[in-house]
Amino acid sequence: MNMIDSVSAQEAYRDELVAAGLLIPTGVDGLYGRSGMFEEVVERFDALVTVWGGADGAEVMRFPPALNRKYFEESEYLKSFPHLAGTIHSFAGDERAHRSLLRRLEEGQDWTEDQVATDVVMTPAACYPVYPTVAARGPLPEEGRLIDVFSYCFRHEPSIDPARMQLFRMREYIRVGTPEQVMEFRETWLRRGREMMGSLGVPLDIDVANDPFFGRAGTMLSNNQRDQKLKFELLIPITSEEKPTACLSFNYHQDHFGHLWDIKTADGGVAHTACVGFGMERVALALFRHHGFDVARWPAPVRSVLWG
Amino acid sequence: MNMIDSVSAQEAYRDELVAAGLLIPTGVDGLYGRSGMFEEVVERFDALVTVWGGADGAEVMRFPPALNRKYFEESEYLKSFPHLAGTIHSFAGDERAHRSLLRRLEEGQDWTEDQVATDVVMTPAACYPVYPTVAARGPLPEEGRLIDVFSYCFRHEPSIDPARMQLFRMREYIRVGTPEQVMEFRETWLRRGREMMGSLGVPLDIDVANDPFFGRAGTMLSNNQRDQKLKFELLIPITSEEKPTACLSFNYHQDHFGHLWDIKTADGGVAHTACVGFGMERVALALFRHHGFDVARWPAPVRSVLWG
Repeated sequence: MNMIDSVSAQEAYRDELVAAGLLIPTGVDGLYGRSGMFEEVVERFDALVTVWGGADGAEVMRFPPALNRKYFEESEYLKSFPHLAGTIHSFAGDERAHRSLLRRLEEGQDWTEDQVATDVVMTPAACYPVYPTVAARGPLPEEGRLIDVFSYCFRHEPSIDPARMQLFRMREYIRVGTPEQVMEFRETWLRRGREMMGSLGVPLDIDVANDPFFGRAGTMLSNNQRDQKLKFELLIPITSEEKPTACLSFNYHQDHFGHLWDIKTADGGVAHTACVGFGMERVALALFRHHGFDVARWPAPVRSVLWG
Repeated sequence: MNMIDSVSAQEAYRDELVAAGLLIPTGVDGLYGRSGMFEEVVERFDALVTVWGGADGAEVMRFPPALNRKYFEESEYLKSFPHLAGTIHSFAGDERAHRSLLRRLEEGQDWTEDQVATDVVMTPAACYPVYPTVAARGPLPEEGRLIDVFSYCFRHEPSIDPARMQLFRMREYIRVGTPEQVMEFRETWLRRGREMMGSLGVPLDIDVANDPFFGRAGTMLSNNQRDQKLKFELLIPITSEEKPTACLSFNYHQDHFGHLWDIKTADGGVAHTACVGFGMERVALALFRHHGFDVARWPAPVRSVLWG
């Protein structure tokens, strides 16, 4: 399948989803409302993740879809992914400035130039608020920490691919501890992820992957990430067999966040971290692709896994 | 209670919530993570709203926490509330611009100036994406439409009052139809809202209210809104008896959105709209305030209403 075929397959699937009422267009590529049925699939999958991960006793934290800008600046996200980040800006003027804003808006000019950056930025990945939160609690206990998060995330990458949304939801488990604790967590979830998604009757593969680092220097970072097998993805074909979509990811950050946030293990070492992320919309889109748009007619074993 | 007492009561309650682990500070006023228990209360209240409203057969739509900027510009929100809006901006430069961004960041200079407005803005109220969506479907059916939404909303108003968050969740029912249909909907929910919140064992009052319109011209709009009784709020004391907190709101927009979006009733008239909004965090904060931080020890009737 060449690039054009791939793009037209994405557009065709998006159109089908819209026609079926599962996605609600908003006039912006990658920004969609969802129907009640779409949401129910997301909720049922979310509950399934809890079934597989719940016994581990993770601490539940739920953050809004934005971060403290100061923490974001310290996170080094801007080094690697400046093109994906979203900063939230606001009007800071008086009534005179307000009249000028409205005049520009009415005349079709750019009124956004005078907007001023606020203290918050869009959350780029659900785990970002967790590291400063864990750091603020002081050294880790012996057993390390395990956190459960779920958040809307923003990435500025408008696309007609329904599986590449600008705003999407990510559930994550995040492990913080010694290298051994963290590697064991990732191995466990690589196995669980395969079993869990297998129970949903979708074709899947797990492969080494890399993040979309920016620029030429980014190519080196990507290669390094692959060579060291720091990132794996669980891939499911949605609009292409050749380029299946990453629906889960398994990330080992080594001591990157431990260093950045000065998180220490019980014995004083720099903490290592890993996370497993579940792309909620992507999993729903994969299920609709493989089992059809009417959940009542999904295969009985899949319905039983999701609806019990 | 004077202003200083009121502010210190807000700060005291926020500190208590943080100490109890219900809110997780992020270093920004009005931006908090929530514990699993806080979230469970939000989820149970959300389910209670469905118990009261579910039989009406509303169409469920779930939008992400951002809007098409074009629709937002057309909504006239910037006329009334420019100070509360949040626009999402992104980096649009090349590798050279990226180096400059990183240099500024490192030197502690403002790196946000060159961020460029994207096509999306933060959702200011959960109902905003609904009007263009309904408009796109053409004239209303005889019975009008009833929509059920739930969304994170952003308002740029940093505050130490835990009940005034910058990012918070709002569930809404939105009625679109003839003036009679819409007024009947609002009357129904004024009654239901009082009964439903009464069943949660919190002191409450319903009163005429106004939105926080910007500037001197805004004062006139506020007065007009009050004179015409277009907005009611269900108030519950959280950190102040004298200034109770609006936890639900009941809004009649007359034909404002119908005109803006050209929504027509079945007989060709301009549609009227109304909505009832449930402030999810505020209701949770009111429940924690009046029943304590340990939900297991809440009064049995309240537990029974929420947990069945």
